[in-house]
Amino acid sequence: MKISIKKVVFAIGLATGVVSTSHAGLPDPGMVISKGNTAVVITDPQNDFLSPKGVTWGVVGKSVVANNTVENLDSLFKTAKAVDMPVFVSPHYYYPHDHEWQHEGALEVLMHNIKMFDREDALSLKGFDGSGADWLEQYKPYINDGKTVVTSPHKMYGPDSNDLVLQLRKRGIDKVILAGMSSNLCTESHLRELVEQGFEVQVVSDATAGAILPEMDAYQASLINFRMIAHAVRNTEQTVKQMKAH
Amino acid sequence: MKISIKKVVFAIGLATGVVSTSHAGLPDPGMVISKGNTAVVITDPQNDFLSPKGVTWGVVGKSVVANNTVENLDSLFKTAKAVDMPVFVSPHYYYPHDHEWQHEGALEVLMHNIKMFDREDALSLKGFDGSGADWLEQYKPYINDGKTVVTSPHKMYGPDSNDLVLQLRKRGIDKVILAGMSSNLCTESHLRELVEQGFEVQVVSDATAGAILPEMDAYQASLINFRMIAHAVRNTEQTVKQMKAH
Amino acid sequence: MKISIKKVVFAIGLATGVVSTSHAGLPDPGMVISKGNTAVVITDPQNDFLSPKGVTWGVVGKSVVANNTVENLDSLFKTAKAVDMPVFVSPHYYYPHDHEWQHEGALEVLMHNIKMFDREDALSLKGFDGSGADWLEQYKPYINDGKTVVTSPHKMYGPDSNDLVLQLRKRGIDKVILAGMSSNLCTESHLRELVEQGFEVQVVSDATAGAILPEMDAYQASLINFRMIAHAVRNTEQTVKQMKAH
Amino acid sequence: MKISIKKVVFAIGLATGVVSTSHAGLPDPGMVISKGNTAVVITDPQNDFLSPKGVTWGVVGKSVVANNTVENLDSLFKTAKAVDMPVFVSPHYYYPHDHEWQHEGALEVLMHNIKMFDREDALSLKGFDGSGADWLEQYKPYINDGKTVVTSPHKMYGPDSNDLVLQLRKRGIDKVILAGMSSNLCTESHLRELVEQGFEVQVVSDATAGAILPEMDAYQASLINFRMIAHAVRNTEQTVKQMKAH
Repeated sequence: MKISIKKVVFAIGLATGVVSTSHAGLPDPGMVISKGNTAVVITDPQNDFLSPKGVTWGVVGKSVVANNTVENLDSLFKTAKAVDMPVFVSPHYYYPHDHEWQHEGALEVLMHNIKMFDREDALSLKGFDGSGADWLEQYKPYINDGKTVVTSPHKMYGPDSNDLVLQLRKRGIDKVILAGMSSNLCTESHLRELVEQGFEVQVVSDATAGAILPEMDAYQASLINFRMIAHAVRNTEQTVKQMKAH
Repeated sequence: MKISIKKVVFAIGLATGVVSTSHAGLPDPGMVISKGNTAVVITDPQNDFLSPKGVTWGVVGKSVVANNTVENLDSLFKTAKAVDMPVFVSPHYYYPHDHEWQHEGALEVLMHNIKMFDREDALSLKGFDGSGADWLEQYKPYINDGKTVVTSPHKMYGPDSNDLVLQLRKRGIDKVILAGMSSNLCTESHLRELVEQGFEVQVVSDATAGAILPEMDAYQASLINFRMIAHAVRNTEQTVKQMKAH
Repeated sequence: MKISIKKVVFAIGLATGVVSTSHAGLPDPGMVISKGNTAVVITDPQNDFLSPKGVTWGVVGKSVVANNTVENLDSLFKTAKAVDMPVFVSPHYYYPHDHEWQHEGALEVLMHNIKMFDREDALSLKGFDGSGADWLEQYKPYINDGKTVVTSPHKMYGPDSNDLVLQLRKRGIDKVILAGMSSNLCTESHLRELVEQGFEVQVVSDATAGAILPEMDAYQASLINFRMIAHAVRNTEQTVKQMKAH
Repeated sequence: MKISIKKVVFAIGLATGVVSTSHAGLPDPGMVISKGNTAVVITDPQNDFLSPKGVTWGVVGKSVVANNTVENLDSLFKTAKAVDMPVFVSPHYYYPHDHEWQHEGALEVLMHNIKMFDREDALSLKGFDGSGADWLEQYKPYINDGKTVVTSPHKMYGPDSNDLVLQLRKRGIDKVILAGMSSNLCTESHLRELVEQGFEVQVVSDATAGAILPEMDAYQASLINFRMIAHAVRNTEQTVKQMKAH
C-alpha cells in the first residue's frame, strides 16, 4: 500500500499561519477543547524574545510583527482568564553556572554569547526586574494573578528539565493549547515532548514567531513540523473562539 | 545588547546538505569524534522509508534519491564497523494495540492508516521478514553482526519511550553521530531528546531524507533545525573522514 | 510547626500486607477506582520470579508463598478482565548486548550472573517458550487475549526506558493499580516513576513479593516505601472488591 | 540455575551504615572515583530536615543524630571543595500553586499539611532567609561559593522534574557520590532515577537519615535498597578517603 503525493497534498495558506483544515490532504485530527482537562501553555513570554529591546529582536522581530504575536499571546492569556482555563508558563533562564557547560549546540552558544535570559542566580532577583529574562510587561497581570502556574525554567528547549509535565498532570490536564516563543526551538520542543508524554496538543500558529535569516526561515520550518506532529494547528482567532465555546 | 541579522547570516549551501562551516554566521561548535565515547545512531533504517516498495516512498522517495540516503547510510554503517565504533539502531514498530490509541497527531493517524511499521506482536515474527517494518536488506549484515545494539522501538518520534539513552550511557557514549529516517520526524526528535539528555550530537545531513509535499519541504525544515540545535551538521563524506581519523 | 512521632504513628498490620487504614497515623489519601481512566499494571509476571523453577526462587520463593502472590496476581488479572479494565504488563528482558554494559549496580550484576530474564535477541524467540523470561504459564490466557498491552521491556527497574507511560496516556489512564515482581525493585521503581509522571497509584501489597535475605527483608522495605509514596496500599481482597464496585 | 540464600547472604553491619564489603554475599561492584567525571550530589540540605527547628525533626531527628548526618554532610562538602570536585545540590521547594494539586501520595499530603519547604513564589525571596526551605546555615559557605551548582527544585522525590541530570551531563559527570535527605524518599528516588539514566552511583550510608516511626524504620528500608541498587554503599569516612585519593 502506497500513498501518493496527491493524497497528502497540503492546504494553501500554511505560510500565513492560517491553516485551512477542510482541504488539507494530511489528516487533521483536531482537538476538542474540554472543560477541566485543557490548559494553555506559553513558552518564554519574556522580553528577550518579545520586546524590541530584547537581545534577539534583530532576528525574530520581523516574524513577531508579521504574526502579531504579542497581541495574539495577549488574547490567549485574556481569554483563558475569562473562561477560567488554567494557564502554565514555562520560562527560560540561564544562571552563571550554565555558562560553564562543557559543550553546547549552535544556538546555545549564541544565546550564551548574547547573554540571553541571564539571571544572577536562582535565589537572587537582583537586576531581574525589566531585564531580558523578565516577563513582557503587558503580560504581568495575567502571570502574577495568583493562579497562573509558572514552572521551573527549561534549560534546553523542551520541558524535559523542568516540572511542566508534572504540574499539568497534577491538575488533571491532558490537552494543551500551546503558544509562545520561539516557534521552532522552545515551542516546538515543548510540542514534541508533550506528545511523547501522551498529551493532545493544539499549536496556535500565529501566537508564536521564529527567527528569519537568509536562507533560514525558522518560522516556516516550525509550521511544517507543527502540522505534521500536533493534533491541531489553528490561529489565534480560531483558538479563542474554541476556548469561549468550550 | 542586540545581534544584527548580519551577524547571524547563514552559509550558502544549506539546501544541498553541504554546510559551509567557515562562512557560517551562526556559531558552529563542531564535534570532535573521539575513541570510546562516540557512537553512530541510526533511526528507522527500515523498508517502509528506504525501499521503493515501502509505504512512504511516494512522499519521501524523491528526497531519499536526491540525498543518496541509502548509500550514505551504508557508508556510515561500513565505516563504523571498520573503525570499530559502536552502532545503535532505534527502530519504529507498531503493534495492533497501538492502533487502539484514543488520540493521535496528524502523522500518527497517517502512519496507522497506511499500516506503516506494522508488526503482529512484540513476541511474534510472523510476516516480519521482508515486511515494511524489517531492515532494508542491504543493512542486515551490519545490524545482525552481533555487535550493533538494537534498542526497543520508539513509539512516537523520539527515544523517550525506548532504551536508547540508557544503552548509550551504559556503554560510556556521550557523543552521537546521528542519521536515518525521516529527517524532521524521528531523526530530529532523536536529536532534540539527545541534547536534552546532555549528549553532543553531529547530524549527518545527507544520510537522512524527508517528505517533500506541495508547500511543505520537510527535509529543508529539518536542516534549519539541525543547524540551530545540533553541535555539528556535516555531510556523509565529511563525517566518514572524521570517523576514519579518530 | 512540628509533627510529633505520635502524630505519624503507623498502623498495626503493615507486616502482613493488610494495611489498616482507619488507624493509620500517616495520611491515607486513598484512590477511587473509576471507569475509563484506571488500569492494572503488572511488572515482571515471569517464570524467573514466580515459578519454583525460576532462577530467583531461592531468595523470593518464601515471600511469594507467604503472600500467596501467584494466586493474588491471578485474581487481579481475572477481575480486570471480568470488569473490562485495561491491563498493562511491563516485562523484563535482557539481551546479549546488555551483558556488555560497562557498569552495573549490585543486583544488575547478580541478575546477569544468574542469566535472569535472558533472551537470545529482541527479534528472536528461539528458546523463549517456557524459559525464565516467559510469562508464568497460568497468566498466558490473560496476557495473550488480544487486549492486554505488553510494553517494551524495562531495562533497569523502572519504566523510564520503555513505553509504559505513553501507552497508559494514549488510553486515557491516569490511575494505576500496581502489582507484580519484585516488590522493592521493579514494582517500587514503577511506583516511583509513575508518581513522578503524575499518576495516582494504588499498590496491591500482597500481589507482590520480595527477596528475603539474612538482615535484609526487601519485602518489608518495600511496604514502608509503598505506604509513604503511593496514594493507597491495599491487599488483593480489598482491591478486587473496589474493582468490582467501580 | 538457581542462587541459594547462602550465596546472597548479606554482610553484618548494614544496620549501622557501615557496609562490610569483603564479606558481602551480594555483588559489590564498587565505584572508582575518578577526576573530572565524578561529582557529589546532595539532596535537600535544608532546615526542614536537618535543623532541630525543622518541621520534620520529630520524626527524622533521631536518625539524623544517630548517623551524625549533619557533620557527615559537612565533611563531604568540605572534602569536595578541598579536592576541587564538582558539587550539585538538588533542593525541594513548594509554592502556593503546588498546594492546589488534585491528588497526592501519603507523604505529599503530610508535607503540604506541615508546610514543609514552603516558599512564597519562585520569583520571591520574601521570608525565605532562615526558613525551613533555606539551606542549613553551616552549609551556606559551601553552597554559595559561586561554584556549587544548585538545580531547580525537584517537586516529587526524584530529579525527574528538575535539571539535575542535564547539569551533570553538561559537566561531563557520569559518576555520582550521593547523600542528603531523606534517605528513603528523595535520596533513594535520586539514586533510582540516576541509575535509570546510566550513572554510576555511590551512596554515602551515614550522610543521610530517614524517618523512624513505630513499625516503620525508613532509614533501614533505604539501606536495603541502596545496597541492592547502587554501585557502591560506603560510609562518610570511607568516601572521604576515596575522594582524597582520587
